[in-house]
Amino acid sequence: MALSPELQELAASVSNWGRWGDRDERGTANLIDDAALRRGLGAVRSGRHVSMAIPLDQKSPQQGGAPGRIAPLRTMLSINQTYTGLDGDAAFNDDTVVMAMSAGTHIDALGHVTYGGFMYNGHPDSKATAVDGLKRCGAEKIGTLMGRGVLLDLPAALGVARLEPGYAVTAADLDAAVELAKVELVPGDVACVRTGQMQLFHEGDTQGYNHDTPGLSTHTIRWVRDHDLGAVFTDTYVYEVWPPQDWAAMMVVHMIHLRDIGQIQGQNFDFEPLAAECAADGVYEFLFSAHPEPFTGGCSAPVNPVATR
Amino acid sequence: MALSPELQELAASVSNWGRWGDRDERGTANLIDDAALRRGLGAVRSGRHVSMAIPLDQKSPQQGGAPGRIAPLRTMLSINQTYTGLDGDAAFNDDTVVMAMSAGTHIDALGHVTYGGFMYNGHPDSKATAVDGLKRCGAEKIGTLMGRGVLLDLPAALGVARLEPGYAVTAADLDAAVELAKVELVPGDVACVRTGQMQLFHEGDTQGYNHDTPGLSTHTIRWVRDHDLGAVFTDTYVYEVWPPQDWAAMMVVHMIHLRDIGQIQGQNFDFEPLAAECAADGVYEFLFSAHPEPFTGGCSAPVNPVATR
Amino acid sequence: MALSPELQELAASVSNWGRWGDRDERGTANLIDDAALRRGLGAVRSGRHVSMAIPLDQKSPQQGGAPGRIAPLRTMLSINQTYTGLDGDAAFNDDTVVMAMSAGTHIDALGHVTYGGFMYNGHPDSKATAVDGLKRCGAEKIGTLMGRGVLLDLPAALGVARLEPGYAVTAADLDAAVELAKVELVPGDVACVRTGQMQLFHEGDTQGYNHDTPGLSTHTIRWVRDHDLGAVFTDTYVYEVWPPQDWAAMMVVHMIHLRDIGQIQGQNFDFEPLAAECAADGVYEFLFSAHPEPFTGGCSAPVNPVATR
Amino acid sequence: MALSPELQELAASVSNWGRWGDRDERGTANLIDDAALRRGLGAVRSGRHVSMAIPLDQKSPQQGGAPGRIAPLRTMLSINQTYTGLDGDAAFNDDTVVMAMSAGTHIDALGHVTYGGFMYNGHPDSKATAVDGLKRCGAEKIGTLMGRGVLLDLPAALGVARLEPGYAVTAADLDAAVELAKVELVPGDVACVRTGQMQLFHEGDTQGYNHDTPGLSTHTIRWVRDHDLGAVFTDTYVYEVWPPQDWAAMMVVHMIHLRDIGQIQGQNFDFEPLAAECAADGVYEFLFSAHPEPFTGGCSAPVNPVATR
Repeated sequence: MALSPELQELAASVSNWGRWGDRDERGTANLIDDAALRRGLGAVRSGRHVSMAIPLDQKSPQQGGAPGRIAPLRTMLSINQTYTGLDGDAAFNDDTVVMAMSAGTHIDALGHVTYGGFMYNGHPDSKATAVDGLKRCGAEKIGTLMGRGVLLDLPAALGVARLEPGYAVTAADLDAAVELAKVELVPGDVACVRTGQMQLFHEGDTQGYNHDTPGLSTHTIRWVRDHDLGAVFTDTYVYEVWPPQDWAAMMVVHMIHLRDIGQIQGQNFDFEPLAAECAADGVYEFLFSAHPEPFTGGCSAPVNPVATR
Repeated sequence: MALSPELQELAASVSNWGRWGDRDERGTANLIDDAALRRGLGAVRSGRHVSMAIPLDQKSPQQGGAPGRIAPLRTMLSINQTYTGLDGDAAFNDDTVVMAMSAGTHIDALGHVTYGGFMYNGHPDSKATAVDGLKRCGAEKIGTLMGRGVLLDLPAALGVARLEPGYAVTAADLDAAVELAKVELVPGDVACVRTGQMQLFHEGDTQGYNHDTPGLSTHTIRWVRDHDLGAVFTDTYVYEVWPPQDWAAMMVVHMIHLRDIGQIQGQNFDFEPLAAECAADGVYEFLFSAHPEPFTGGCSAPVNPVATR
Repeated sequence: MALSPELQELAASVSNWGRWGDRDERGTANLIDDAALRRGLGAVRSGRHVSMAIPLDQKSPQQGGAPGRIAPLRTMLSINQTYTGLDGDAAFNDDTVVMAMSAGTHIDALGHVTYGGFMYNGHPDSKATAVDGLKRCGAEKIGTLMGRGVLLDLPAALGVARLEPGYAVTAADLDAAVELAKVELVPGDVACVRTGQMQLFHEGDTQGYNHDTPGLSTHTIRWVRDHDLGAVFTDTYVYEVWPPQDWAAMMVVHMIHLRDIGQIQGQNFDFEPLAAECAADGVYEFLFSAHPEPFTGGCSAPVNPVATR
Repeated sequence: MALSPELQELAASVSNWGRWGDRDERGTANLIDDAALRRGLGAVRSGRHVSMAIPLDQKSPQQGGAPGRIAPLRTMLSINQTYTGLDGDAAFNDDTVVMAMSAGTHIDALGHVTYGGFMYNGHPDSKATAVDGLKRCGAEKIGTLMGRGVLLDLPAALGVARLEPGYAVTAADLDAAVELAKVELVPGDVACVRTGQMQLFHEGDTQGYNHDTPGLSTHTIRWVRDHDLGAVFTDTYVYEVWPPQDWAAMMVVHMIHLRDIGQIQGQNFDFEPLAAECAADGVYEFLFSAHPEPFTGGCSAPVNPVATR
């Protein structure tokens, strides 16, 4: 067992196994309930939409970061093609794409990570197969996420342009961002945790963006669970701090978030435009909506999340 | 020129070129404005979400219907893979996908169809290239679609289980469905035009689902334009009636909708669950939200559209 | 164990495990040795080349025959693209492809089939993984196959246009084809077993070509092993007879050929042009050369096999 | 016109347009005729095969070198999958691949490069389309290449470990390599031009391998044509020297070789093992065989070329 006794104890103490029934595959998505939706609807002010997705193309941050994770390659099946051969008839442009499911802005399926033989909620890891992908806790099980979103703007709260690469975010940091946002987080809220790392991607520094990165850490796991957040998203490639705090517990946040908490989480969210708008009017809450693409058995779901302010 | 003089006249009379500026690439998405959003938010009652997306997998209706349009093939890059080699450490499931951009539920990019050398709004069709795809009117230009949706349930209005294959929907049919819905359509509304054809897909009859199909027709083009709909979606593979009303004007609805009206439209929407709920409580309006995947230059955008009732 | 006691006994009696060392991954390819090469070189008469490959494109026989086996989809990355932007400068056409490895004419990797926990030569089936594919007995291990080929023209020997779908070839049939060929088969020879089924593919009847099919059977396994053939190729999709002789021993020829004999074998070879030439001059032997594409860990190797007569 | 008057004159003087008929699509492959085959067969001594292909996997040199050229990504469709569900029954390993056609060792289709509106032999460049790829001079037209190969070992001839990056090979260099090889080049011979650049790839320095590179140049074009070589292959990524001798005539060797001469050529050939064997026994000729994969309309053909010594 790679987790230390302390981390095992932490994992056990934050576990949500069985909380929504023995067959549940949605985890904290269950928390984004009707009350959360109402909070989200109530947070709409100007009605302005801000997408948090990065473009899906060859400039994707997925460029060798992990084996086989390729950037979206979209090619044309036809270009102004008139199938009838009649001049002036309808001419079609059609295309196809190949991409790692996690190539762009995406939400992790809860079965994306396993350890000790299990996925979230005790589903056996043997439910991951070559033919069917994730037969439990797959991307198509996530469902609609629509509720109140809150931007936790860490750089703004800490008075820096962006967090340092390799910085392990603390619970106190998150508290500071909540205070800046002037909201009270309640169960089912969607936390958009900005580190500012996305600036590197915007600047074309893809390798800098990917590694090293600030991120969530062992210091924040209990905080996340205590707040019963519906979902937690970040503007980084790894989600959690990299290099890891302890190589012997590499990817520990993924392990405990996904498998034990059943925490809906995602990566490569672009919070830069949103942060600018929040800073301008001082309002950090909004209607959050994200409708993950329903790939059957998928390990991640591409998504275009939108803040409606 | 394949369009008859009458159809050319129709195309000219419904044109929106220049309406939102010479550089516009969003067409009727512009109509889904703040007022539309407010109407949508106001239509939320129970807060229940109903997805209109079909699963993305090998059972997709895209199976040879058009050259190169392949069903989504999702394969595993890793299965419970412990990169450290340490037992009990985080084990990852990762995957990749290849698919026609229009393989599932999708929204057409406005540049999907051209004729006479032009895309919507006079953008030259030379803006479609192998290297970059659609440099104008591509999928990433569609943006967030969030407003009031209305289910136009044609089978319910016409008293049939589903429309006949090859049936050309008329303006009167649409009026009957509006009457059934007991709503007044206003500019910027999103029309979800149900034919019932999706039942064939649910029954596993993919070939029957694909061809022949009922659909929008030359009888409905002016109706669509006169109502200034923000978007029009259908539960069929072809969108418009197939076989065509006139082979000499094949795909005429695509031609005039996309190029002349700049009409946001899409296909393979599954309205069956939504229709059942609308029929049960008699409420046919809802908050419609769809956040198309931002594939740079894409000819279609995969999307998971959601009705919040 | 799915194999009956009789088949298990057969499997054990034809096994080549250990014959070329405990670490061998090439099986009967070892038999295509220098003597075989000399026989092949000696069989060259006119010097005319006849390819046995089918085209790699969307008309491939791989169209849903097995889960995820997609026909080659080749798309353009650029079309007459001048990267400098200077008129008259070099303009490039570039492309990409996605395909099932077994989509066209291919040779099975010896690790393509396992049973009872093992690949050929006792390599554990755990050597097949998502990340690395076949870490033993993969496509890149097959190596160059160059020796004497002999066309075993079953329809010609049996006086029919082509064998019936579902016909299980017998040892006597193969003997008749050897007699027709007027050659003495010796160890290391490459047998090109023609059934004529490829005619259906040429006629555009892809479904007919795929199923049902004549093919090798339990009647021929010992014959193949007794002749110590270097490789055995067929002009069918399944290789062995389909439907199976006994559903309880489905794919039994694959099982025993690949795992027990280590028999190099392959499918979708087009013997029609070759058969016409052999019939014309009565010469059924030739230089056989096939250089499988070295996909690391591949389960099949695409190949363009050539007869030089 | 990007080519200078001198280069235009050179191009015209080496042109093979019409030489093998107005409809020819094979160019110098026509020179690899029966006499060439006999020379090749006569060059077999030990009968030992040496492959010149690099592995097809994610370590491919194609990693962003040109837009969309992705390294081969091979993924598993099934892993030890028993379709019957019966324990002990045949279990299958199956896979799929996506790759740039030029990702590994490949032969350029003659239509890979165009200029001035034409492909080789006057075929119009409009024959390159999104739907069909190269309708003229595509990969499937190359056909079997089997004749005498000669290793032109430039580093050995020039007394260096490998040529310098950016070194433009001269005719005198090639003459020196011919002298070292102690062969008389005759029309239809296949020249394997070793620069030693492949050593960088073997050392894992993919970026160094790709750029900058030694290669054929304007100094060698007439030499190649005067020798009427059947094919010319190199052990580099770019084929010709990079950076170009003159940016205003970028890719000039591709332009004149492919379009004007119709020169069969290819890249990423690994001559290191072959060179070691040739150096050991002083024999630089061999039977060359390469059977390009017949991708319909392909811009390049993956190939596993083999020297039989």
